[in-house]
Amino acid sequence: MENELEVNIPLDVAPSARETYVDNYRTLTSDVGRVMLMAGDQKVEHLNDDFVGPDISPEDGDPEHLFQVAAKARIGAFATHLGLIARYGADYPSLPYLVKLNGKTNLMKTDQRDPVSRQWHTLEQLARFRDESGLKIVGVGFTIYPGSQFEHEMLIEATRLIFEAHQMGLVTILWAYPRGKAVTNELDPHLIAGVTGLAGSLGTDFVKVNYPHAQDGKPAERFKEAVLAAGRTKVICAGGKGTKAKKFLARLHDQIHISGAIGNATGRNIHQLPLDEAVRFCNAIYAVSVENRSVDEALAIYQKK
Amino acid sequence: MENELEVNIPLDVAPSARETYVDNYRTLTSDVGRVMLMAGDQKVEHLNDDFVGPDISPEDGDPEHLFQVAAKARIGAFATHLGLIARYGADYPSLPYLVKLNGKTNLMKTDQRDPVSRQWHTLEQLARFRDESGLKIVGVGFTIYPGSQFEHEMLIEATRLIFEAHQMGLVTILWAYPRGKAVTNELDPHLIAGVTGLAGSLGTDFVKVNYPHAQDGKPAERFKEAVLAAGRTKVICAGGKGTKAKKFLARLHDQIHISGAIGNATGRNIHQLPLDEAVRFCNAIYAVSVENRSVDEALAIYQKK
Amino acid sequence: MENELEVNIPLDVAPSARETYVDNYRTLTSDVGRVMLMAGDQKVEHLNDDFVGPDISPEDGDPEHLFQVAAKARIGAFATHLGLIARYGADYPSLPYLVKLNGKTNLMKTDQRDPVSRQWHTLEQLARFRDESGLKIVGVGFTIYPGSQFEHEMLIEATRLIFEAHQMGLVTILWAYPRGKAVTNELDPHLIAGVTGLAGSLGTDFVKVNYPHAQDGKPAERFKEAVLAAGRTKVICAGGKGTKAKKFLARLHDQIHISGAIGNATGRNIHQLPLDEAVRFCNAIYAVSVENRSVDEALAIYQKK
Amino acid sequence: MENELEVNIPLDVAPSARETYVDNYRTLTSDVGRVMLMAGDQKVEHLNDDFVGPDISPEDGDPEHLFQVAAKARIGAFATHLGLIARYGADYPSLPYLVKLNGKTNLMKTDQRDPVSRQWHTLEQLARFRDESGLKIVGVGFTIYPGSQFEHEMLIEATRLIFEAHQMGLVTILWAYPRGKAVTNELDPHLIAGVTGLAGSLGTDFVKVNYPHAQDGKPAERFKEAVLAAGRTKVICAGGKGTKAKKFLARLHDQIHISGAIGNATGRNIHQLPLDEAVRFCNAIYAVSVENRSVDEALAIYQKK
Amino acid sequence: MENELEVNIPLDVAPSARETYVDNYRTLTSDVGRVMLMAGDQKVEHLNDDFVGPDISPEDGDPEHLFQVAAKARIGAFATHLGLIARYGADYPSLPYLVKLNGKTNLMKTDQRDPVSRQWHTLEQLARFRDESGLKIVGVGFTIYPGSQFEHEMLIEATRLIFEAHQMGLVTILWAYPRGKAVTNELDPHLIAGVTGLAGSLGTDFVKVNYPHAQDGKPAERFKEAVLAAGRTKVICAGGKGTKAKKFLARLHDQIHISGAIGNATGRNIHQLPLDEAVRFCNAIYAVSVENRSVDEALAIYQKK
Repeated sequence: MENELEVNIPLDVAPSARETYVDNYRTLTSDVGRVMLMAGDQKVEHLNDDFVGPDISPEDGDPEHLFQVAAKARIGAFATHLGLIARYGADYPSLPYLVKLNGKTNLMKTDQRDPVSRQWHTLEQLARFRDESGLKIVGVGFTIYPGSQFEHEMLIEATRLIFEAHQMGLVTILWAYPRGKAVTNELDPHLIAGVTGLAGSLGTDFVKVNYPHAQDGKPAERFKEAVLAAGRTKVICAGGKGTKAKKFLARLHDQIHISGAIGNATGRNIHQLPLDEAVRFCNAIYAVSVENRSVDEALAIYQKK
Repeated sequence: MENELEVNIPLDVAPSARETYVDNYRTLTSDVGRVMLMAGDQKVEHLNDDFVGPDISPEDGDPEHLFQVAAKARIGAFATHLGLIARYGADYPSLPYLVKLNGKTNLMKTDQRDPVSRQWHTLEQLARFRDESGLKIVGVGFTIYPGSQFEHEMLIEATRLIFEAHQMGLVTILWAYPRGKAVTNELDPHLIAGVTGLAGSLGTDFVKVNYPHAQDGKPAERFKEAVLAAGRTKVICAGGKGTKAKKFLARLHDQIHISGAIGNATGRNIHQLPLDEAVRFCNAIYAVSVENRSVDEALAIYQKK
Repeated sequence: MENELEVNIPLDVAPSARETYVDNYRTLTSDVGRVMLMAGDQKVEHLNDDFVGPDISPEDGDPEHLFQVAAKARIGAFATHLGLIARYGADYPSLPYLVKLNGKTNLMKTDQRDPVSRQWHTLEQLARFRDESGLKIVGVGFTIYPGSQFEHEMLIEATRLIFEAHQMGLVTILWAYPRGKAVTNELDPHLIAGVTGLAGSLGTDFVKVNYPHAQDGKPAERFKEAVLAAGRTKVICAGGKGTKAKKFLARLHDQIHISGAIGNATGRNIHQLPLDEAVRFCNAIYAVSVENRSVDEALAIYQKK
Repeated sequence: MENELEVNIPLDVAPSARETYVDNYRTLTSDVGRVMLMAGDQKVEHLNDDFVGPDISPEDGDPEHLFQVAAKARIGAFATHLGLIARYGADYPSLPYLVKLNGKTNLMKTDQRDPVSRQWHTLEQLARFRDESGLKIVGVGFTIYPGSQFEHEMLIEATRLIFEAHQMGLVTILWAYPRGKAVTNELDPHLIAGVTGLAGSLGTDFVKVNYPHAQDGKPAERFKEAVLAAGRTKVICAGGKGTKAKKFLARLHDQIHISGAIGNATGRNIHQLPLDEAVRFCNAIYAVSVENRSVDEALAIYQKK
Repeated sequence: MENELEVNIPLDVAPSARETYVDNYRTLTSDVGRVMLMAGDQKVEHLNDDFVGPDISPEDGDPEHLFQVAAKARIGAFATHLGLIARYGADYPSLPYLVKLNGKTNLMKTDQRDPVSRQWHTLEQLARFRDESGLKIVGVGFTIYPGSQFEHEMLIEATRLIFEAHQMGLVTILWAYPRGKAVTNELDPHLIAGVTGLAGSLGTDFVKVNYPHAQDGKPAERFKEAVLAAGRTKVICAGGKGTKAKKFLARLHDQIHISGAIGNATGRNIHQLPLDEAVRFCNAIYAVSVENRSVDEALAIYQKK
């Protein structure tokens, strides 16, 4: 479609893994440097709340639905935990996977205890898994909660796993949410810019943050600060909670074309739909994120017009 | 009895251990994919409360009673701690064992401190034990308490040990009980579905949960959500506390034939009976769980009619 | 004296260490399966409180007194910390030692903080020590406090060290005392039975507990529950605090001949006496514990009649 | 400019790394033993607060600005986190880097919880990075907070990483700020002298502290205590928060020529300026710190006269 | 001066390191079995409080003063942290060093939080340092605070490092101070005897304690309990805070000739003096501690009569 993407390889990628890294980067960014990540870690993060309910397709109650959507839709990678990948991967062997390396449930609330999410599998285990399974593992994901009383524990693990992931040619995405008793406004644009800058210092390739809330009503403008602060670390925006399709796509278009975000990570807005509709909505998101299509063009994809 | 069971091998089983895994899976599931697990970890979890009392056979005061029942009854595996297996295994060499890898006593109550149960033996120790003892170790068990303030510690250990157990061909069962100050209703069907979905993300083959309490009086219907949410991870139901035989078997029948559970894990309801009666009750449970027998047929086995 | 003792070797003893284990077991149990353990860990547990005082022989102020008594008396093994053994062992080379692997002082009271006692030397260090010193190390001891908020930390260490001790042919004794804010009656017979059952699940060869307090005035009867619950793990009773000789020996006789305990662990009741008297009292205890002698016969030994 | 600098090599530098250490020391100290360190760790420590604001050049919003200034200005080394170095290092290959090995955000305030900052990358990872990247890594930096309830955790990591850094020929700088509920006056000259003495005991080559507050209005005099207490560990002074150029340079001149500090570490006072001005101000600081130039001479450099 | 000292080698010294141990023991005990330890860990423990003040020589503000005194005076060893030794050791190559392996500052008070002091360098690092530096490292020191809520952490580290130090032929000294909210009278003679007995159980060669406070005004008599309780572990007395020379020497003489202490560890009483006077006072202490000289003879050495 275009000339081959130039990939800026960070220096902590081992020389012998540089080719692997470039391959993984190109896969994740659909060869154009843009990211459409299908996020499927909610079975840990939100338990079954995102999968069963009045506005949720019954198909979504079965975790395989995630794989079915991911396999049929246009995406850069499907992000989920190793346990699910190990169980379904053999039936979805051509999917590019991004292994989410930590997680926590939503049972303990922030006002009860500051959030903490610690590393599950070691990178050495992941290396074995990649080798033995033959799956296309393009990268790893990890969540940090800056401002939490456990911040230091997560920063240690984040820096070390980003380093080791790079060493073995994997691309990295940090999910970064400022949270805890010390954080008064999680969606403050300046705070989110602080967090993307932090993510850059941790060495990650991509950082996924929540879209800021702007008091002046111009979040896309205010979000520029975060994109700039991240530097060569690229910013991905969370899909967020149930928004109408047009509004969702328009917001995404702003994030990319006004703010300079590199793409999006969307989960429940996709998988809560029935398979066919989910695939179409995913492709619409892909069209905006990766293909520079307009909101109307994307909407037409979704509406199969 | 039937055609050979097709086993879905997760991709974190090392290629060299796939045959072992299939053997273990078939043994645990009695070659038909259904589980009758005799649970014998109560000497840790409940100290001597389950073994001595007015309605408990005096035979149950001696831990060997557990082995005697397990050896004579029809079961998929006997789950207990390594310490007991090491002590009695030589006299019960043909029993299939599932090694429970953690445990806590019931002395500290949940309202005093959130529950925490940490890994005892390492998988490397278990591998040595399996090799040196020559026992039939089919798998490992581990308890997690989602929602506890120590949730993260248990999730780390659960994911890593499931991975390493699979690597060496062992089958895994998670005991998963939402518990702690942040959990208001441990038996909420939707919460239990969240927990089975979590277990699937952790990569376990089986997850044992408590049977939910249904406000509409239809627990078996409401339990379907949990079975669906678990996906390819199979759901086992706890036997629970002292229920009359017929009611027990009927409930089990519902769990399997209405809810879609793959079997059961039963402990004190079996071992609190005298040896002969315990064996018969165990076989009755096996008949329902594994052999698709009716409640009346199973009851006849128990009553030796 | 009798036929060679049949030793039930647990399966976590490495095949190459089975002979060593049998030797150690026979030594500790005086070739008849009964235990007279001289307990000498009080310099850690009670600081100098047990060694200086109005009813204590001045000789006991010097730690070598412990070794002198142990060397002259009839015992299965002398249990103390590695530090003392390293310092005095060369002068008492024929003593069988049981290395106590943890300890805590009595400064912090239970109502200030739940008790915690963590592993000191690693088993790898102990192996080096055994090899290099040439001493007769027959086993290891470790204290756990079930019910403490640190229970999980001690259970992890206990299970792993029992396994590794067995692997290298060492016999294991757990000191098990339910204690902490969650424990209301440490001497409840049913609770103590819970603890001996727990110890069995942890895989130890022996468990030392406090003698229960019986509301019906029949502790020896009530203690049977604990002996039964322990199964093949054998129960040793603590000597307790300063009791007159006859009463002490009678109680011990009951523990063994009524309750079924396998022996005793006695410390301050022995070493607080002058050397000669201490040796005679130790031999009296040995006579009851190991040689099936009557209380009167034992008393005669003590009184050198 | 002068004869080759004699470097006092600490004895924990491995013999095979002595030449590397001398090279690194000379580079960091501009061959004259004086330090102009450009500090660029604020994207972690202060999030985006130092990079966007009314008196801050818009150029500073992009982390590459830091590298651009560092590359054009005269400095001993540029101190920042490995993540950023990995991302930009290939484009700034001739810069000498000092890798900051820990960091924390400013979200949690000292009155909420004592500060803790733990080690990110291991020295083994750093060694791989140095080898594979070919970058000029001259040393490592680490922050400690003496007086914090987590002091012991940071002292352990500091001592071990200083040792290992020296082993591989790297120079070390401690950032040392007394802080926490137990610290009433962070800028007390005597306390700061205590901290520089502590740093010497930890074995670091350099210690960066805040300039003390002197009640007698003579901080440069009072700061002598800290320089003396540090002994052969050399003292670097923090640049501090936004001070006018002349005052800044005069203070620095005092620190060096009155107090005996070996140089300075300056961050936001430099990088908040536009590139050209930042370079000139940096060179002015260099002139005072390294070249023994007067305040007026340095000011002329800044003002390009 | 006398026949060669017989050294009682503990059995945890590796056979290949026995000669090294004997050499180190003889060096530390000046070939006569008595200890004059110059303690120089106060730059960590007391920050700069011991080094600057109205009654302190200005020379003491520079840490090299410690080395100058140690090098010129008669001592068994100079105890300080590895960081300082690494920096000054090349200029004081013939000094025997005892490496203090932990430390904490005095900022956090006991009533704010119980004291904790954790191990800095590993023994493996120390072994490399000894080999590479060629310095005469005779042993290691470590501080424990029995009774602290962190007691267990310090006991673990103490036992393991004593073992490993002995393995490599190093002599060990424990600094042992009962302290924390659970300790009401740190100077109680019976408590201090408990602590020296504990130290013996931990396996150390020497234990340094504070001189007890005796209600009957006879501390030297009351201190005998501690010397006896320590057994073959030898007791060293802390020098304590600023006492007049004669009183200091008389007290030391009592400690040795009445109580049976093996020597002393003195720090600030020596190094707060100007170099020449410090050396003379140190030699006076040496005369009492090591050479069995009278108080008057020692005083004459100090007063250069």
